[in-house]
Amino acid sequence: MVSRVLEEIKKTIMQRLPARVQVAKVEFEGPELVIYTKNPEIISENGDLIRELAKDLRKRIIIRSDRSVLMEPEKAIEKIHEIVPKEAEITNISFDDVTCEVIIEAKKPGLVIGKYGSTSREIVKNIGWAPKILRTPPISSEIIQRIRRTLRKNSKERKKILHQLGNRIHQETKYENDWARLTAIGGFREVGRSCLYLQTPNSRILLDCGVNVAGTDEKTSYPFLNVPEFAPDNLDAVIITHAHLDHSGFVPYLYHYGYDGPVYCTTPTRDLMTLLQLDHIDIAYREEQPLPFNVKHVKKCIKHTITLDYGEVTDIAPDIRLTLHNAGHILGSAMAHLHIGDGQHNMVYTGDFKYEQSRLLEPAVTRFPRLETLVMESTYGGKEDVQPSRNHAEKELIKTIYTTLRRGGKILIPVFAVGRAQELMVVLEEYIRTGIIHEVPVYIDGMIWEATAIHTARPEYLSKDLRDQIFHMGHNPFISDIFHKVNGMDERMDIIEGEPSIILSTSGMLTGGNSLEYFKWLCENEKNSLVFVGYQAEGSLGRRLQKGWKEIPLKEEGKTRVYKVKMDIKTIEGFSGHSDRRQLMEYVKRVSPRPEKILVCHGDNYKTLDLASSIYRTYKIETKTPLNLETVRIQ
Amino acid sequence: MVSRVLEEIKKTIMQRLPARVQVAKVEFEGPELVIYTKNPEIISENGDLIRELAKDLRKRIIIRSDRSVLMEPEKAIEKIHEIVPKEAEITNISFDDVTCEVIIEAKKPGLVIGKYGSTSREIVKNIGWAPKILRTPPISSEIIQRIRRTLRKNSKERKKILHQLGNRIHQETKYENDWARLTAIGGFREVGRSCLYLQTPNSRILLDCGVNVAGTDEKTSYPFLNVPEFAPDNLDAVIITHAHLDHSGFVPYLYHYGYDGPVYCTTPTRDLMTLLQLDHIDIAYREEQPLPFNVKHVKKCIKHTITLDYGEVTDIAPDIRLTLHNAGHILGSAMAHLHIGDGQHNMVYTGDFKYEQSRLLEPAVTRFPRLETLVMESTYGGKEDVQPSRNHAEKELIKTIYTTLRRGGKILIPVFAVGRAQELMVVLEEYIRTGIIHEVPVYIDGMIWEATAIHTARPEYLSKDLRDQIFHMGHNPFISDIFHKVNGMDERMDIIEGEPSIILSTSGMLTGGNSLEYFKWLCENEKNSLVFVGYQAEGSLGRRLQKGWKEIPLKEEGKTRVYKVKMDIKTIEGFSGHSDRRQLMEYVKRVSPRPEKILVCHGDNYKTLDLASSIYRTYKIETKTPLNLETVRIQ
Ligand SMILES: [Zn+2]
Ligand SMILES: [Zn+2]
Ligand SMILES: [Zn+2]
Ligand SMILES: [Zn+2]
Ligand SMILES: [Zn+2]
Repeated sequence: MVSRVLEEIKKTIMQRLPARVQVAKVEFEGPELVIYTKNPEIISENGDLIRELAKDLRKRIIIRSDRSVLMEPEKAIEKIHEIVPKEAEITNISFDDVTCEVIIEAKKPGLVIGKYGSTSREIVKNIGWAPKILRTPPISSEIIQRIRRTLRKNSKERKKILHQLGNRIHQETKYENDWARLTAIGGFREVGRSCLYLQTPNSRILLDCGVNVAGTDEKTSYPFLNVPEFAPDNLDAVIITHAHLDHSGFVPYLYHYGYDGPVYCTTPTRDLMTLLQLDHIDIAYREEQPLPFNVKHVKKCIKHTITLDYGEVTDIAPDIRLTLHNAGHILGSAMAHLHIGDGQHNMVYTGDFKYEQSRLLEPAVTRFPRLETLVMESTYGGKEDVQPSRNHAEKELIKTIYTTLRRGGKILIPVFAVGRAQELMVVLEEYIRTGIIHEVPVYIDGMIWEATAIHTARPEYLSKDLRDQIFHMGHNPFISDIFHKVNGMDERMDIIEGEPSIILSTSGMLTGGNSLEYFKWLCENEKNSLVFVGYQAEGSLGRRLQKGWKEIPLKEEGKTRVYKVKMDIKTIEGFSGHSDRRQLMEYVKRVSPRPEKILVCHGDNYKTLDLASSIYRTYKIETKTPLNLETVRIQ
Repeated sequence: MVSRVLEEIKKTIMQRLPARVQVAKVEFEGPELVIYTKNPEIISENGDLIRELAKDLRKRIIIRSDRSVLMEPEKAIEKIHEIVPKEAEITNISFDDVTCEVIIEAKKPGLVIGKYGSTSREIVKNIGWAPKILRTPPISSEIIQRIRRTLRKNSKERKKILHQLGNRIHQETKYENDWARLTAIGGFREVGRSCLYLQTPNSRILLDCGVNVAGTDEKTSYPFLNVPEFAPDNLDAVIITHAHLDHSGFVPYLYHYGYDGPVYCTTPTRDLMTLLQLDHIDIAYREEQPLPFNVKHVKKCIKHTITLDYGEVTDIAPDIRLTLHNAGHILGSAMAHLHIGDGQHNMVYTGDFKYEQSRLLEPAVTRFPRLETLVMESTYGGKEDVQPSRNHAEKELIKTIYTTLRRGGKILIPVFAVGRAQELMVVLEEYIRTGIIHEVPVYIDGMIWEATAIHTARPEYLSKDLRDQIFHMGHNPFISDIFHKVNGMDERMDIIEGEPSIILSTSGMLTGGNSLEYFKWLCENEKNSLVFVGYQAEGSLGRRLQKGWKEIPLKEEGKTRVYKVKMDIKTIEGFSGHSDRRQLMEYVKRVSPRPEKILVCHGDNYKTLDLASSIYRTYKIETKTPLNLETVRIQ
């Protein structure tokens, strides 16, 4: 059946391409259609034609060169350096024998592409190899290097995976699409282990697959994948909305458990997710509570990941089309829009979202082509969950920093590695650059640095304001001189004994990591300040300090020592990556078209119910608040 | 793991039985524990001991003789006739080599059993074979004969089935029973194709599996068995509440589709269900719209059926215990009480039920040992669904019959074969016997006779009043001389041309069958009466007549003839086998203990919602009204 579909497509392509073009092969590679040709240069000169063809076929099209026209690598490298201007700062060139692509990594990838793709076309014309152009991050990222290496080394396997997947996706549908339903597998009436399962007569899709890091055992930590309708071997696709572990942390387990299909997400989500998954495995290993999967499965996940840009419409099953849209929560965070069947039903799963402009990101998207069912988060869905404005939060932060520095103290900000840390960096950089705060070193400890490196590799995903700064004004706040990466214990001791400074360190709730070490060193001096900018869970040290505890017993090399807390403790609200109650309600008002049904998830029991009933009362839209393990029919 | 359980049980048995008893073997046979012994007479003399043992082991115990002590069949027959009094009227004796049982069929089985089982014990003591005593129905039933023959012929296969099942049921549970959920597979927000699917971490149970006979195609006729969580090969049990096709009609398909496990129901349900399933296949075949299963699968169903009495507590899965209770709807109809895990959760699925005393049956049971979730029907759940009393309905019926007979007319009562027909027979017999109506022949046409025969085979399931008449006063209304079985067209013509009479014939809505033929013959004579006692579906001829149509075009041998309706058309409400609105509300009030949650099913969309919201408003019990394909968590 696939072959029939493919035959049809081939015929259309042959009719539409200039007669001179020699098409060697046409095949599916994941959701994309790949045309192998002996005249890649002719095709690349006819960009409009290809775009039109893609639109008419409703497929993404990739042009590759036939093996016979490839230039010898050594010569090709020379040629590339001839064609590409020096200012592009190429850092690496490698060749992929399997896909006949040349992978060019450069600090200014735009200059390798050229105006409207002119330089890139020039390359393919001259050397045969189709250029795949990647950005060299201004701060080097171990994770991105690792991912790129994995993909390079497993190119052949990946091509096989994509080819099989392509055939599966482009099958004709077997059954009539007369129903669609959602099963709550995790993260309903709770926060953590988000997992939503979409089923139609023709396909099965998992939306997010997270862990609850605060869970006490398997039963509270992991999603209910033992639900009878779920089987990893007949799952069609996994969609990950963003990298936080409560949305992505259990994906490696799927591969351990027999899943062999694709993961769809944005590029930053893939990178950050890999970072957090590896860290999670590490921590669990160190705490001697190993997870039910390991690094091998993270690697398998990388090999199976297909990255999508916002707005890119992609077939992910014979009857389902996915489009990701900006969610404003963290870098690369997305809302998933699913178009089911021949448009019988459209749903949006928001994941976590922020419906407000932040320093880092644009607010969440509200316009969709069609929309019947909306599944939305409710982290701050309670009546009382109204947060101060961003502006107010920034002023509070600056005031605290200013006061502390003036008295010669240090500021410790325990912060989660991804999202809020970078938001704070942008704020601090601006206030220091503009002289509102005197120049002071900002120490970036632990994983935050790596997460920031990933941010610098994906500037396209940042807010318009930051993109303007980076691309047009040549000013990237993340690589400012004020930021110092902390390497090891010696440097930490220097910081503690040194001049006033600002320290950003994980973990965000002082439950471990270096932030706890800094706390021990800094807490007994009343000049210093501890600033909380994120949620402190019940039971965490952070929460205790917020409650005013002044004597903190902590284990140290087997003994317990009591720390007397003299440093100033400050909580600043308003930096959240989640929409507050007003923003959630406003989002429902603004989202267009108006959904027929709203499912509320990702919130404490009370908040979920409160938001759902408020939505119903205010907007008269049917709401549902399923429990984990419940199934709701949406069509 | 089974063997460990069994070893434990064996040890207990050995300790408790008198030392003289030689136990040859102990094994599971379906939900029962079978003890094979060389001294069956000793055990049977210790009835109290066995009862106590059963209670302590929480297992049903059956005693069988070891092969070595069996008397030769010919001699055994002689001996049985010696022991059993002539008045028992033995009609058949056969020997089951596989189970070492002697099957004795008798018109008065009570006399074969004897006082407190004394005669039965005498038999085993003398011949070794354990007697299995069956009632010979006073009206011979083809279906019961057929079922008994099938079971006799397949004794070996059945033993194997039961043995395997026994091992499955008595396994230790694999997972912790921390959730239970119900999926609506059919018959929710509608009437027809009832099917409810219970899942726990350890087992999967189907409650009812019906068809919608009014359905227009596969999608509207059959339950959604293609729901992803359902797979016939890992289903543990099927429970059938009663024989109506909207609850039992799709069971044969399960066997076609790969199911190989047990069906639990009462004995009358098995018999009536077989009757209706075979008839359904027949009709579909004649109408050239064959069903997706055939007689072979009905046979397979018979071989896999395990009959239970009301109140008999039975293990049906490692974590589930089933008890059936009288539902008052039709003969053998049951409510299913399920005890899940170690009592973590208890649910009752009502099936169809009548919460009112009728001529035929006692009202539905309201007391259960424990109850958290109640799943109840809502056929007459609308505010307006209030029916006249039984008493009033009977008076109306008698008045109509009296008037019609006096003017020399005939009374045609189109009626469904099972339930209402027998209810009317009991009413008619009483009024004629007591002289309120002059003696007049009552003709019983088609399947009604066979269904009545099954009623006479299972008097234990009838109302107390009828049981008293039959057992203590020796008077069985069903075998009264006033009832005449109609055999073939000639007899029908005689009836039409003969004296005034009452005719009970299927189908109940004049949609086909002999009732339609009678209608054609009788409708143009104004002396005759047509009496509707049951629901007439939209679109049926019955409904049209109720609406007052006076000219009815009907196909006859290819041509259309228009019948002018002159006969009197009468509708009598109050004979329904379903609870009316008041009875449904009263049932919720009376059911004990008070459930925490009520799911409403088996009703039109509006009636389901209306009853659910009335229950919530009146009793403040949480109600749910799932759609087909939705899943609700109950624990
Ligand atoms: Zn998040
Ligand atoms: Zn989250
Ligand atoms: Zn019924
Ligand atoms: Zn029914
Ligand atoms: Zn079998």
